[in-house]
Amino acid sequence: MRAAIAGASGYAGGELLRLLLGHPSFEIGALTAGSSAGTRLGEHQPHLPALADRVIQDTTAEALAGHDVVFLALPHGQSAAIAAQLGEGTVVVDCGADFRLESAEDWTHFYGGTHAGTWPYGLPELPGQREVLREARRIAVPGCYPTSVTLALFPAFAAGLVEPDVVVVAASGTSGAGRAPKSHLLGSEVIGSVSAYGVGGVHRHTPEMEQNLAKVAGGPVRVSFTPTLAPMSRGILATCTAPAAPGLTAAALREAYETAVKDEPFLHLLPEGTWPATAMTAGANTAVLQVALDERAGRVVAVAAIDNLTKGTAGGAVQSVNLALGLPEELGLPLNGLAP
Amino acid sequence: MRAAIAGASGYAGGELLRLLLGHPSFEIGALTAGSSAGTRLGEHQPHLPALADRVIQDTTAEALAGHDVVFLALPHGQSAAIAAQLGEGTVVVDCGADFRLESAEDWTHFYGGTHAGTWPYGLPELPGQREVLREARRIAVPGCYPTSVTLALFPAFAAGLVEPDVVVVAASGTSGAGRAPKSHLLGSEVIGSVSAYGVGGVHRHTPEMEQNLAKVAGGPVRVSFTPTLAPMSRGILATCTAPAAPGLTAAALREAYETAVKDEPFLHLLPEGTWPATAMTAGANTAVLQVALDERAGRVVAVAAIDNLTKGTAGGAVQSVNLALGLPEELGLPLNGLAP
Amino acid sequence: MRAAIAGASGYAGGELLRLLLGHPSFEIGALTAGSSAGTRLGEHQPHLPALADRVIQDTTAEALAGHDVVFLALPHGQSAAIAAQLGEGTVVVDCGADFRLESAEDWTHFYGGTHAGTWPYGLPELPGQREVLREARRIAVPGCYPTSVTLALFPAFAAGLVEPDVVVVAASGTSGAGRAPKSHLLGSEVIGSVSAYGVGGVHRHTPEMEQNLAKVAGGPVRVSFTPTLAPMSRGILATCTAPAAPGLTAAALREAYETAVKDEPFLHLLPEGTWPATAMTAGANTAVLQVALDERAGRVVAVAAIDNLTKGTAGGAVQSVNLALGLPEELGLPLNGLAP
Amino acid sequence: MRAAIAGASGYAGGELLRLLLGHPSFEIGALTAGSSAGTRLGEHQPHLPALADRVIQDTTAEALAGHDVVFLALPHGQSAAIAAQLGEGTVVVDCGADFRLESAEDWTHFYGGTHAGTWPYGLPELPGQREVLREARRIAVPGCYPTSVTLALFPAFAAGLVEPDVVVVAASGTSGAGRAPKSHLLGSEVIGSVSAYGVGGVHRHTPEMEQNLAKVAGGPVRVSFTPTLAPMSRGILATCTAPAAPGLTAAALREAYETAVKDEPFLHLLPEGTWPATAMTAGANTAVLQVALDERAGRVVAVAAIDNLTKGTAGGAVQSVNLALGLPEELGLPLNGLAP
Repeated sequence: MRAAIAGASGYAGGELLRLLLGHPSFEIGALTAGSSAGTRLGEHQPHLPALADRVIQDTTAEALAGHDVVFLALPHGQSAAIAAQLGEGTVVVDCGADFRLESAEDWTHFYGGTHAGTWPYGLPELPGQREVLREARRIAVPGCYPTSVTLALFPAFAAGLVEPDVVVVAASGTSGAGRAPKSHLLGSEVIGSVSAYGVGGVHRHTPEMEQNLAKVAGGPVRVSFTPTLAPMSRGILATCTAPAAPGLTAAALREAYETAVKDEPFLHLLPEGTWPATAMTAGANTAVLQVALDERAGRVVAVAAIDNLTKGTAGGAVQSVNLALGLPEELGLPLNGLAP
Repeated sequence: MRAAIAGASGYAGGELLRLLLGHPSFEIGALTAGSSAGTRLGEHQPHLPALADRVIQDTTAEALAGHDVVFLALPHGQSAAIAAQLGEGTVVVDCGADFRLESAEDWTHFYGGTHAGTWPYGLPELPGQREVLREARRIAVPGCYPTSVTLALFPAFAAGLVEPDVVVVAASGTSGAGRAPKSHLLGSEVIGSVSAYGVGGVHRHTPEMEQNLAKVAGGPVRVSFTPTLAPMSRGILATCTAPAAPGLTAAALREAYETAVKDEPFLHLLPEGTWPATAMTAGANTAVLQVALDERAGRVVAVAAIDNLTKGTAGGAVQSVNLALGLPEELGLPLNGLAP
Repeated sequence: MRAAIAGASGYAGGELLRLLLGHPSFEIGALTAGSSAGTRLGEHQPHLPALADRVIQDTTAEALAGHDVVFLALPHGQSAAIAAQLGEGTVVVDCGADFRLESAEDWTHFYGGTHAGTWPYGLPELPGQREVLREARRIAVPGCYPTSVTLALFPAFAAGLVEPDVVVVAASGTSGAGRAPKSHLLGSEVIGSVSAYGVGGVHRHTPEMEQNLAKVAGGPVRVSFTPTLAPMSRGILATCTAPAAPGLTAAALREAYETAVKDEPFLHLLPEGTWPATAMTAGANTAVLQVALDERAGRVVAVAAIDNLTKGTAGGAVQSVNLALGLPEELGLPLNGLAP
Repeated sequence: MRAAIAGASGYAGGELLRLLLGHPSFEIGALTAGSSAGTRLGEHQPHLPALADRVIQDTTAEALAGHDVVFLALPHGQSAAIAAQLGEGTVVVDCGADFRLESAEDWTHFYGGTHAGTWPYGLPELPGQREVLREARRIAVPGCYPTSVTLALFPAFAAGLVEPDVVVVAASGTSGAGRAPKSHLLGSEVIGSVSAYGVGGVHRHTPEMEQNLAKVAGGPVRVSFTPTLAPMSRGILATCTAPAAPGLTAAALREAYETAVKDEPFLHLLPEGTWPATAMTAGANTAVLQVALDERAGRVVAVAAIDNLTKGTAGGAVQSVNLALGLPEELGLPLNGLAP
């Protein structure tokens, strides 16, 4: 199968290429981008010598036509126009936010402008979603933060073990902010520093978390979400807490998580007492989980670590595409990470 | 005045020395340590060439006698025995945990063993505490996490703007874990990684946070506290949330914080929309604060950044000592940080 | 084929396991270690969930017997005794230094004690060495620094373009120093700092560099080598200079490097004007090279970047084993890195 | 005395302000910048709460007039025009390159365009230069790399212990590249990576190093200089080697360095066997030195660590200004660093 990547010079594009180079079912077709069109890929992704001499084309429907799969790793708002020009038989995967939300109202509140629509949501671990993805020809890849938070909390909500009043504080590596040069993302600024941003309910990933958890909970869920930027290139550590349901025991909580991850190829529940670190997941499509009951504070604390570019973006995208194409879900996706 | 430092070869000891070298009222007297006794300070603190040739003595009451101030930067549990041998006129400052908690029950639950007692708590910003410290001859320096959390939330509790059900997630640099070599603190392990630890209500700083906030709130406060380790040497970023009191407005919240910091020399409330970063505080005794009302989630989110070794340990200690000795509170303490 | 790993809880052991998990011809057999024996691998290599529950055995000849390949990732001096007890048909690969040097005098001078012997040197890119490795049943994996320096300079020496008076300054990530906890390797010490060590001709990798380059040059080569420690987990950047041969032109120099790398699967010469960065090679078995003629100073400057744990240790080991077993040299080895 | 800073929103400007805030003889006057004019300093230098509300003016001669000292921290090429409009009695300090080189030919070769002239060179440690600076009203602050290299090698050249054929490889933190946003300086790019740049005799600091060392050596000196970028915000580690003069002994080498640093307030020669780390110098005006004789390779290896923004720029500038104004040379300058 041939795969095209729009946005090949960015971080998500580079990670898609890294994964597809190791995937036995894909041949890499067109590579396109905006301002990088006309240059060689090696200038932008020097860690991929296998593709160093490939020339990047302009992102147009013509360049992307004729592929089995088209991955769109474009700035928000640019996917709809391109997708409309691609054949219905093509699997089109949007790594941006355009088609994630179901609520047009939430879209307008958080992103502004008009909602482009809703595509099947590319998180196979969400109960029932694997079956949806097997039939999908359009896939909305989840945001990196919502991936981590949903995976951390869905077992608790699915089993009715927590109240729907969630507090999340997550640390992300800098690659989540993309490759466009900005002063506050300079190495000099981020090295040696952890900072908060998008505080107070304004981060765009908030309604996506609420949408996911509400489906599992069977009712509305409130999320207080604070993202922070940490001095590392990759990784998200999401610390998620919610009030424990009355009478919850640590054993019941553990059992719910063990059950939830049992058949999941990319969820790894750590042994009791060991807590996730983002370094456990670098380059892997794995989410590493742990959970505890804080009886003193009356809260469940669930922590997830993922690689924001792999499970949080490109790996999650390939996992969903595997399902859509009838391939084994794990095919070509690293379970193991790169450490130290 | 002459100051002695017990634990001079560790990180807290080094920071105390850095600050005292820049303090106009202190002469540096005895430097003591455990296994480093007999070596030169330059081997351990090569960033302090002014003291490179000073020889470290064994930590004994004899070595520490005859000073106006004795700073104890020792492992937990070692301060009480030394302190008992020092004259009552000497100002003795414990940078460890031994004398922070008022509840012997909490002490035994979180630290084990017998509670050594309670000393005046060295956080001048806590309402009423400045006056206590002016009379103190024994001072318990607060824990680094409790310092950050208390400073982030005391204005909201003092003004009755939040409910006493707090969730804190804080990121700390590695120096907070001390200088003893441990595998999980190796550069190879911490670089490129954020990890959670001490999750689920087990971290020893939890009761100290509750103790401080309860005093301000005038009633019990529950704290769900999750610490995380970030790939930086210094700094704490504490994200603290609590349910907003009914009818709270953003303007009232802002005003409460402006009032609370107005006369505080080391609290810096950022302009609206700007959020704390630990790099703003490196080497400074300043706590940088910001607060927001998340109306969607019904919560107040307060964030504090401090340098864990300065305001969080050694700087806070010197600030309290300044008060105890009748010196200007700001004397010798850097307000400005080292950045980038 | 079944592979055993002695030293499975260390960094080199972990990287061997990561690579072997992705290698189509190997099944992972015994995992052994010293003080970690009896524990599960997941405690030490949490980034490898595929092997989380495997129990580590004691490093004994019995545990290692019955495998097609045995990788020894042990402290210096421990390999000879184990290797002597393994069958001659077994491919035994020493990732330590014991069998790298040909000169017993150099061994004693730099390592002390008695020289254990010399095994075929596992650097296939060294002229003529690929053929030697095809027949080998014992393989000495090169040191990480010598790998980088030899790959940077062999094209220049092979073509007679430089004088045998080399200056090397190399920066290494902290994983090169291993996993044993030491104060100077704590995150607090290495983050934010580059430091020199082993300066003045005392680093043990110096005679190994001289041995390799002398073979290519056809005569003795002097190397002034200064290693430095950089705040990253992985990677070596080796900057290597030597006086240019009389009359050397930039074009002739470039051509020599293009010729030397042309058929090498893991050597990647960057386009002119682009210089190596260690991030280009994370997790890859690739060495990224660049070279320039400094006419003003009369010197050739060659720079190589490698991942010290992959091409510099475990990847290089697997590459040599592939040759020894008659497998395709590239099999199971990542050409592309993980970035950013 | 009143000091104005042009370029107050950049990294050099911020460091000048940090130092001047701690200097007893200076009052901070006009703060000017280019595109940041009209904004508050707190937006750019949030680590300096003491100046948070100061408004930045446009960089004009009018704004800078009426000060005792004017520090110019401007992009290359902009200082001459401003300086020409400032009174001759004003001490004008150029932190840029415009007036460092004596050779107009070198200037044109390395920087292009016309040479603006030569000002007294602000490196008091250079033999004879302290006296020059005492009379200066115009000061050219040395480049950060030349500062480190000159301080590392001048004792050896002054004593005639090395041949004039120098190889330097230096690692710098990212702040040396300034604050303008560029893709290759993003945190995502620099974290976890060491990279070479400006290789092969093209870096603009090369002729400045040669100029300095030639003065000490009394004859021409060739320098092969390779800069590298390391994942840290601050610091330079310069590894400098040159062929040892015939018959040189380690004792004679050590003695030459001890003599050279004896009366220098900001040069700190480490005890034998200990090597510089940039963390020893963070925020300090100190250069930390060590030297060794590599008898096997026939070379002297001298290593210097400095903070590129302090001793390498702003601290060096203030040190020279202290001399020019007849103040004690050490006044207001930190000898001790911030570590860990």
